[in-house]
Order: sequence, then structure tokens, then C-alpha cells
Amino acid sequence: MPHITLPEGIPGIRGPMAFRPETARPLNDLAEILLRGPHTLSPGERELIATYVSSQNDCQFCQTIHGAIAAHHLNGNEDLVTSVKCDFQHAAISDKLKALLVIAGKTAQGGKHVTAGDVEAARAQGATDLEIHDTVLIAAVFCMCNRYVDGLATWAPDDPDFYRQRAALVAQNGYAASTLPPADSSR
Amino acid sequence: MPHITLPEGIPGIRGPMAFRPETARPLNDLAEILLRGPHTLSPGERELIATYVSSQNDCQFCQTIHGAIAAHHLNGNEDLVTSVKCDFQHAAISDKLKALLVIAGKTAQGGKHVTAGDVEAARAQGATDLEIHDTVLIAAVFCMCNRYVDGLATWAPDDPDFYRQRAALVAQNGYAASTLPPADSSR
Repeated sequence: MPHITLPEGIPGIRGPMAFRPETARPLNDLAEILLRGPHTLSPGERELIATYVSSQNDCQFCQTIHGAIAAHHLNGNEDLVTSVKCDFQHAAISDKLKALLVIAGKTAQGGKHVTAGDVEAARAQGATDLEIHDTVLIAAVFCMCNRYVDGLATWAPDDPDFYRQRAALVAQNGYAASTLPPADSSR
Repeated sequence: MPHITLPEGIPGIRGPMAFRPETARPLNDLAEILLRGPHTLSPGERELIATYVSSQNDCQFCQTIHGAIAAHHLNGNEDLVTSVKCDFQHAAISDKLKALLVIAGKTAQGGKHVTAGDVEAARAQGATDLEIHDTVLIAAVFCMCNRYVDGLATWAPDDPDFYRQRAALVAQNGYAASTLPPADSSR
């Protein structure tokens, strides 16, 4: 049961977002730009970073919904998402993304864990300053979202199909459009 | 030295924000609403929550600038800010704020650390659902900011006067206005 009274039947982060639409708007804008904006990292790669960090933080809702969105972008390859969460060094992803996931994981532990060597290793695989910046910020943003979701003890559905269906909606419409209820879609 | 090439001479979070203004905008909007919007918790109290969390996360820039902003709102009482960082249970703050700081500190450790008992204790001191929600979100937001600042190894000035002067500007003009450089103020 959530720690505060949230609108009923709205899972995960969408509950507190409906409770507090003023803060939901910039949160959604941030997710939209970081995860779906024009980029040299694909939306699938960026969602894998979000999923991995949420998994490291043991946030059931975030790792499942962003894992489903990642899989949606990656031709439905749910096994790839699982392998990134469990052991990304042996997953079928690029060496650049592996190096960025090292940075993301260390950012989640605490920013000071990221070393110049980690950044150099990512650069050696072709990572740009923008890709390194956005990796750190995506990891930091999900450290926020995970704490927001679990700090309020929000509800996470068990049914994997819920997440698959929701992922298709988010992939099609984006974060801002699909998170706010229809009556608020003009905001 | 920062891990990526940031505009020179811009300290803390403002370096990566100048590097990536697209994400800076929603980050500043979020801080503006959460820390300075209309609220039953004063700006000083909300800045104390931000300062305490940043201190727990050992983020030098964030704890110093938000501590200075908190002090600015609290009639220049820097000793109070120090006492909240070191031992808030014995600081000269309300019992409600103490209970909210317990929730903030646990959110920083990880959302699942927050218990129903912690929330009940805050409610017993008069905390509302919105105050509890915003405490969790402020703590989560600073877990993000701290990781963003330290994950990129940004520069934090040593001179306390730098932070005092900056705090006065932020308190007067807000986050969005004072974070972006003048040339970008129309964004």
C-alpha cells in the first residue's frame, strides 16, 4: 500500500505523477529529451541504461517498464534486456555500450565512483562527451525515479503483459503524452 | 578536472547544464517548483532537506550551495544549517521537519528504506501527504543532482563567499533565471 493516498489503480511512478502534476511535467520533459530525443545512442540503448540502473537499484516497476520499452525498441528482444540486467559484459551489445554501462552502474553507486579510467575506456570505444554526459545523467535520473517510486511504496503490477502493452504506448506516444491522464493531455 | 570538456569557470551543476541546455531546462523547472513554489514548507525548510541529502551523499557543491541558500532564507543562520547536516535530531527545527528529514535520509539510502512507521511518525507531527510526497521527491531529486555533479567530476569552488553570493542571486531570481547564462536567458 502506498505511503500516501494516491489515485487508485495507477501503477508505479504514474501514481505520484497524477498526485502532483506540477512536478510530473518537468520529470516527463526530462525523460522525453534524454531517452527519446535525437541522439547518437538509439532509444533502445538509452532505455537499456535506464533499465540496468533501475535493476541495480532493485526498483521493480522501473526496471520492468523500461525493460519492456527497451525490448520494444529492440525488435521485442526481451532476452537481450534480461542479459544486460544480469551480466551486461557478456550481452550481445556493443563494446561502447558496455563501457557506458560501467559508468552508469558506478554513477548509481555514487558519482565519485566514476573514475577517469572508466571515462577513458568509454572514449576508447568511441563514446563522445555527449554520450558520456547523457549516460551519467540517465543513471542519475533513474536513481531519482527509483527512489521516488519506492520511497512512496507505489504499486507495481505483476503481469508482464501490462508492461508490454504500456511499453508500446510509450514508444508510440512518448513520456509526456502517455503518462498524464487524457483530461490533462493539454498540459 | 571534469571527465568531459565543460565550459570553463562554471562551477558545479551549472557546467553540465551549460553543456546540455536541453536537459537543464526541465531540471531547473523541477527545482523551481519543488524548492520555491507555493508550499506549506518554507523555502528554507525545503532547502534544508536538499542540503541534508546532499551532505549524506557527500556532494560538496550541492551541500554548500543549497546550505547557503537555506541560510539565506533562514536570516543568515549558517549555524542552523551546520547543525542540521551534523545532527538534525538536536537542531533548532520543528519536530515535523525532523520527521521529514528521517524520510529524506532513508530515501537517499534507497526508497525501500522508508517505512510505514517513518511516514506515520511524520503524520503524527502534522505532516500532510503533499509534504511527505515532496520530501521524498526532493530527496530523490538531490540523489540525482549529487550523482550528476560528482559523476562528471565537476569543479566546486572552495571560497564560502562564492556560495553566499550565488545563494543571494538564486534566492532573488530563482533557479531557471540564475542558472542559465545571460545569453540564454530567453530560453
